[in-house]
Amino acid sequence: MGEVLGVAVLGAGHMGADHIRRLAHLVSGARVAAVADPDTERAQEVVAGLDGVSVHAEAAAALDAPGVGAVLIASPGPAHEEALLAAFDRGLPVLCEKPMVPDSTGALRVLEAEARLGRRLAQIGFMRRYDAEYQRLKSLLDGGGLGRPLMLHCTHRNVSSPPGFTSAMLIDSSVSHEIDAARWLLGQELTAVTVLRPASSSGAPQGLADPQFVVFETERGALVDVEVFVNCGFGYQVRCEAVCEAGSARIGDEHTMVVTTRGGAREDVAQDYLVRFADAYDRELRAWVDATRRGRVTGPSVWDGYAASVVAEAGVRALETGRRTTVELAPRPGLYATPGR
Amino acid sequence: MGEVLGVAVLGAGHMGADHIRRLAHLVSGARVAAVADPDTERAQEVVAGLDGVSVHAEAAAALDAPGVGAVLIASPGPAHEEALLAAFDRGLPVLCEKPMVPDSTGALRVLEAEARLGRRLAQIGFMRRYDAEYQRLKSLLDGGGLGRPLMLHCTHRNVSSPPGFTSAMLIDSSVSHEIDAARWLLGQELTAVTVLRPASSSGAPQGLADPQFVVFETERGALVDVEVFVNCGFGYQVRCEAVCEAGSARIGDEHTMVVTTRGGAREDVAQDYLVRFADAYDRELRAWVDATRRGRVTGPSVWDGYAASVVAEAGVRALETGRRTTVELAPRPGLYATPGR
Amino acid sequence: MGEVLGVAVLGAGHMGADHIRRLAHLVSGARVAAVADPDTERAQEVVAGLDGVSVHAEAAAALDAPGVGAVLIASPGPAHEEALLAAFDRGLPVLCEKPMVPDSTGALRVLEAEARLGRRLAQIGFMRRYDAEYQRLKSLLDGGGLGRPLMLHCTHRNVSSPPGFTSAMLIDSSVSHEIDAARWLLGQELTAVTVLRPASSSGAPQGLADPQFVVFETERGALVDVEVFVNCGFGYQVRCEAVCEAGSARIGDEHTMVVTTRGGAREDVAQDYLVRFADAYDRELRAWVDATRRGRVTGPSVWDGYAASVVAEAGVRALETGRRTTVELAPRPGLYATPGR
Amino acid sequence: MGEVLGVAVLGAGHMGADHIRRLAHLVSGARVAAVADPDTERAQEVVAGLDGVSVHAEAAAALDAPGVGAVLIASPGPAHEEALLAAFDRGLPVLCEKPMVPDSTGALRVLEAEARLGRRLAQIGFMRRYDAEYQRLKSLLDGGGLGRPLMLHCTHRNVSSPPGFTSAMLIDSSVSHEIDAARWLLGQELTAVTVLRPASSSGAPQGLADPQFVVFETERGALVDVEVFVNCGFGYQVRCEAVCEAGSARIGDEHTMVVTTRGGAREDVAQDYLVRFADAYDRELRAWVDATRRGRVTGPSVWDGYAASVVAEAGVRALETGRRTTVELAPRPGLYATPGR
Repeated sequence: MGEVLGVAVLGAGHMGADHIRRLAHLVSGARVAAVADPDTERAQEVVAGLDGVSVHAEAAAALDAPGVGAVLIASPGPAHEEALLAAFDRGLPVLCEKPMVPDSTGALRVLEAEARLGRRLAQIGFMRRYDAEYQRLKSLLDGGGLGRPLMLHCTHRNVSSPPGFTSAMLIDSSVSHEIDAARWLLGQELTAVTVLRPASSSGAPQGLADPQFVVFETERGALVDVEVFVNCGFGYQVRCEAVCEAGSARIGDEHTMVVTTRGGAREDVAQDYLVRFADAYDRELRAWVDATRRGRVTGPSVWDGYAASVVAEAGVRALETGRRTTVELAPRPGLYATPGR
Repeated sequence: MGEVLGVAVLGAGHMGADHIRRLAHLVSGARVAAVADPDTERAQEVVAGLDGVSVHAEAAAALDAPGVGAVLIASPGPAHEEALLAAFDRGLPVLCEKPMVPDSTGALRVLEAEARLGRRLAQIGFMRRYDAEYQRLKSLLDGGGLGRPLMLHCTHRNVSSPPGFTSAMLIDSSVSHEIDAARWLLGQELTAVTVLRPASSSGAPQGLADPQFVVFETERGALVDVEVFVNCGFGYQVRCEAVCEAGSARIGDEHTMVVTTRGGAREDVAQDYLVRFADAYDRELRAWVDATRRGRVTGPSVWDGYAASVVAEAGVRALETGRRTTVELAPRPGLYATPGR
Repeated sequence: MGEVLGVAVLGAGHMGADHIRRLAHLVSGARVAAVADPDTERAQEVVAGLDGVSVHAEAAAALDAPGVGAVLIASPGPAHEEALLAAFDRGLPVLCEKPMVPDSTGALRVLEAEARLGRRLAQIGFMRRYDAEYQRLKSLLDGGGLGRPLMLHCTHRNVSSPPGFTSAMLIDSSVSHEIDAARWLLGQELTAVTVLRPASSSGAPQGLADPQFVVFETERGALVDVEVFVNCGFGYQVRCEAVCEAGSARIGDEHTMVVTTRGGAREDVAQDYLVRFADAYDRELRAWVDATRRGRVTGPSVWDGYAASVVAEAGVRALETGRRTTVELAPRPGLYATPGR
Repeated sequence: MGEVLGVAVLGAGHMGADHIRRLAHLVSGARVAAVADPDTERAQEVVAGLDGVSVHAEAAAALDAPGVGAVLIASPGPAHEEALLAAFDRGLPVLCEKPMVPDSTGALRVLEAEARLGRRLAQIGFMRRYDAEYQRLKSLLDGGGLGRPLMLHCTHRNVSSPPGFTSAMLIDSSVSHEIDAARWLLGQELTAVTVLRPASSSGAPQGLADPQFVVFETERGALVDVEVFVNCGFGYQVRCEAVCEAGSARIGDEHTMVVTTRGGAREDVAQDYLVRFADAYDRELRAWVDATRRGRVTGPSVWDGYAASVVAEAGVRALETGRRTTVELAPRPGLYATPGR
C-alpha cells in the first residue's frame, strides 16, 4: 500500500479534533500532516504531542504544506465550498464532513466542478453508511429476500439541542442523516416531503418546533417517515425499520447488558452520537484512508451531498409552509452512476 | 351478584360463535339465553350442546325471548343500528361489536336515541381497552410520569386480507381500532386526518391500496401515525409507541419463548387477532357481564362509537382525495362526560 | 356438560381464598358449595356475598355437605393426607394444592390408597403445567424438532422469603416446582441430586442458606440445574432454558412494555407468583372443573406428587450432607402410566 | 509516542495470520518486523505485500531480527514456554496467546522467570477482558451498586469442534476463557471445581463428552457454573449472568437487527469467535501496542496465565474422576498484586 498518507485537516473544533485523534492513533497508514484553523492556538493544542504537523490559519496554506496527500474538511459548513474547490484545483482526495455545502446552489457548484474534472475526488461524511447495523440492513435489502421496500420508519432523538439550534436545523442538520440513509438504503431519490408539527415539548427551548414528523416520498413510491426529537431528554436513539413486501427488518434497538434490580430490568441508552456511532466514524476514516492510498474514491459522493442539500431545503420549505413540497434535482452527471451509492 | 345473566346473541357468524363460546364456557355469571341469525341452521349448530337456548331468525324475537336480560350484537354492521334501537326500546344493556354503526349518520341517530334515554345502555366492542399491555400503557400515561404525550406511532399488520376487502376498509375496519385506542390513550378527540399511499405491495390483491400510512392530529396537538398493512404476509402485529415529553413507552413487541437453532434466534409472531387479543376478548366480556349484573354500564360508550365512525369517514375521504381532512363532530351530549373514557 | 359443579374448599387462608374467588367469579360451571377451616370466622368472611355456601370447622363435614361434588384442598400441608384419603373414601374428585403430602412416607400411603381404588381421583396443584410459556416449551420439546434435551437451566427467584422460611424449604417448597416442571418437560424421573451452597446473601435472614444451586440428574442422563434465590430483592423471576441436541429454547424473559426515560430503557419485573402465574392458576382451575364435569381426571397425578416429595427429601439430605444423593422411588403402580404426564 | 513498534510474530497459522493483519492494517503505531514459522513458505505468503518483514524458521532468529521491539507469540502452545523465556532473556515485551503454557509446571517456570526479572514483560491473550460487554459488566461489578457477587452463570457454545478435540479440551481450551473471565470479573481465585457430564449430544463426535457442566467455587464463596457445549450446532454463544446481592446483570444476549418474516421474528447468531470477539481482539492489540510504546505492561499477567493453567488442570482431573477437585496455587509473587487484574 506504499506511503503513509499525510492528511491536512481543516478545522480543529469538536469534530476536527476527534478526526485528528483517529488519524493519529487509530487509523494505520495515515498521519496528520497539517492542520488549519483560524484559531491557531487551539489547533496547536489539539496537535500537541504529534510529530510533523504544521499548523496554519488558512486552509489553502495547509493544503500546500509539505507531505499533504489528502484533505479532511471539518471546518464550519460555510467554509466547505471554497475548501472543496481548492482541493479539486490541487487534485487532492477529500473527505468532507456533512453538510457538504449548506445551500443547494453552492452544492451544485461543487457538483459541477467535480463533474468537470471527470473523476471523483470527494467523499462526503455520511458516516451511518459505515455503521455495522446499517450495513447489515443495507445488505439484507440489497439481497432481495424481503422483497421491495415499501416504507422506512425512522426515529432520530437527541437528549437536548445545542444553543442556537433552530426549527429548520431539525431538518437540515438532524434529518439530513436520514435523508442520506434513506437514499442509500433504498437506492432511490426522494421526490417530495411533508413536515408535520405536533405540539412542541415543554422540554424544548421556547420557540423551537420540536419534535417534528417528516414524511418523504421516493421516486418508486416508498414512504420514509422520520420522528426527529432533539430534546427528548433521555438519550440518543437512532432506529430504522424497513417494511418490505415479504417482511420487515429493524435496527437500532440493539441491547447489550441487562441489569435487573429493584426498579425492574434496565438497559442503558446511549447519550451521544459520538458514542453510538464511534465505530462507524472509525470505519469511515479507515475506509477513506485505505481507498485513498489505493488511488480510489468510494463512499458517499458529491451527488449524495448535493441531493441531501436539495431535499433538506425542500424539507425546510415544507416546515415553513406546512405543505407537501416537491424536490427538484438537477440532472445527474454521468460521473455519478447509481443513486445512493 | 344475584342471578345469572341471560344473554341474547345477535349473529352466529365467526365473531358471534366466539362470543357464544365465551359466554357458555369462560365467563361465570352469564349464559346464552337466545341466539338470532337469519341462517337458523347455522345458529343451531353453534349452540348445539348448550341448554336452554332459543334460536331465532329475527333479532327482535331473540330480544323478547324468555330469560333475556342483555344483548350482545355480533351481526353484520348494517344490522347494528336497528338492533341497538330495539335494545334501547326494551331497556336492555348491550354489548355491540365494532363498528357500532357503519356510517356516521346512523351512528348519530343511535347517539341521540341513547342521549334521549338519559342513561347509558350500550358498551361498544373496542376490545383493545381490555388488553393487558394497552391497559399498562394507559395507566402509565394517566400516571403522568412521562409528561404530556406528543406522538403515538402505531403499527397494524395482518397476514392477509379477507376477500372483498377494499382500500377504504383499511381505514374504517382496521384503523378504526387505532382510532379508538388513540382517543382512549390520549383522552383527546382526533381533529384531522391525512392518508399517505406508498406503492402497494405485490402481495396485496390487485387494486387494493395496501399498505397505507395514516396521520391523525388531536385537539391538543398530538400526532398519531398508523402504518396499516393488511397483507404483510408474516403475522398479526399490533404495536404502539407513545412518545412523551419525558420519555417513551412501547407495547406490542412482547416476546415469550426464544428458540435458537441453526437459523438464528427466533420468536413466534401471532398469526391472528383472535390469538393476540384472546385475553382482551375474555376480559371485555367478563367486565361487561360483571358490570351488567351490577346494573352498571362501563367501557367504550356510544359516543366513542360515534366518534370512531366520524373519524373513519374523514379518513376514507382523506384516502380518496389525498388531502388533509378535518373531523367534524356533533356536540357531545352531557351523558358522555370525558372523551375516550 | 350438565350440572354446575359444587366444590368443597378445604382451607380459607391466602391460597384457599384465592381459589374461592376463582371458583365464584372466574370459572364457569363451578360454584363453591362448602368451605372448611378451623377458623370459621375467617371462612365466613371469605365467602361473604356468595350464595349457598356452608361453612364448617371440620374438613369431613364439608365433604359431606349437600351439593358437594368435588374437593379442592388448600389447607396446610400436614392436613392433606387425611383430606385426600377422606375424599377417596367418598369417591370425590380432588384438586390438591402442593405439596401433596409433606413427607414421602405419607405420600406413599396416598399413592397406595388411590392405586387400590384402581382409578385416579386426584390432581395435584403443580400449576406451572398450565402456564402458557411452559406449555409452549413442553410442546416444542415433545415435537422433537430440537432433538433430545441435554440440560435444563432454571432460575427461581423471590423478592424475599416469608418469616420462618428454612434452608430446607428452598428445596422442598420452592424448588419443588422445578422438580415437577423438569419431570414433566423431560418426561423422565430425576435420579440424583447435589446441592451447592454459594456464600449466602446479606439480604437473606441470618442463618438461611440463600441462594442455593441445585443440580439434578435424570434417568436418561440429562442435567437440570436450578438457581434458587428467595431473597434476591428485586422480583419474582422464573426462567427455564432447555438445551437440546439441535437447539435451545428459553422461557421466562417475557417482556411487555418498554419504557425509556432518563435512566435508560426499563421493563417491569413481576413481584409475586400470584401475578406471574395468575393465568396459570385460572387455567388450572378451569381445566380441573371441565375435566371433573366430564367425569375425567387429568393433570399432575398422585404419582407426580409422590415423586416430587421423594426428590425433595433427597434434595434436603443433599443440602445437609453436602453430598450427591440418589433418589429412590417405590415401583410405579400401573395406574400411573407415563412419568411426568 | 515516538517510534513505530516493530513486532516479531511467532507463528503464522490461523491466529498468527489474523494478528499480522491487525498489526499491518488496523493498529496504528505498530508494524510487523519479523515472522517466525517452521513452515517458512506459509509465513512468506502471509506477509506478502508487507514491507520490511523478515521471515525465519526459528523463533530466536525472529527475536534477534533488526527492528524488533516486541514479540507476539501465536505459535502452538508447546512452543510458548521457550519463546517466553527467550523474550525475557532479551528484555522484550510479549503478548502471548492463550494458553500461556499448556501445563502448570511449565507455567510455574515462566512465572518464576518473570518474577526473577522483577518486572512484568508479558501480557497473556485473554481477549475477553477487552470485549465491550465484559468491560461493562466488570465496571458494573466493580462499582459495587449490585453488591457482592454470589454466582456467575456462564454459557460457552460452539457450532462444532475441530478434528482431534478431546473431552479434556472442553475444559483446558474452551472453559479456560471462563476461568480467566471469572477470576477477573470477581477479583477472586477459583478454589475448587466439579465437572458434571450430562448425556453427550448425538451431534458430538463419538467418545467426546460434550456438553459438560462445570462448577467452580471461589475463595470468597461465590459459585461459577459453565455450560460448555462445543457441538451445539447452531452458533457461537458466550453469555454471562452475574447474580449479586442486590440485582443481576447479563451480557451476551446482545441483539442487533430483528428480521420478521413468515417464519417469525429472527436474529442472527454469530457463528465464530473471530466474529463475536473481533472488536475485542482489535482492542487487545491496540492496548498492547499503546502500552508497550509507553514502556508499560498491562492486561492479563503471567500469574493469570499460571492460575488459569492450574485451574484447568484441576478441571480435567475433576472430569476424569467425577469428583470435586481442589485447586492448589503456588504462593503469589509480590510482582502480581491483585488477583485477576
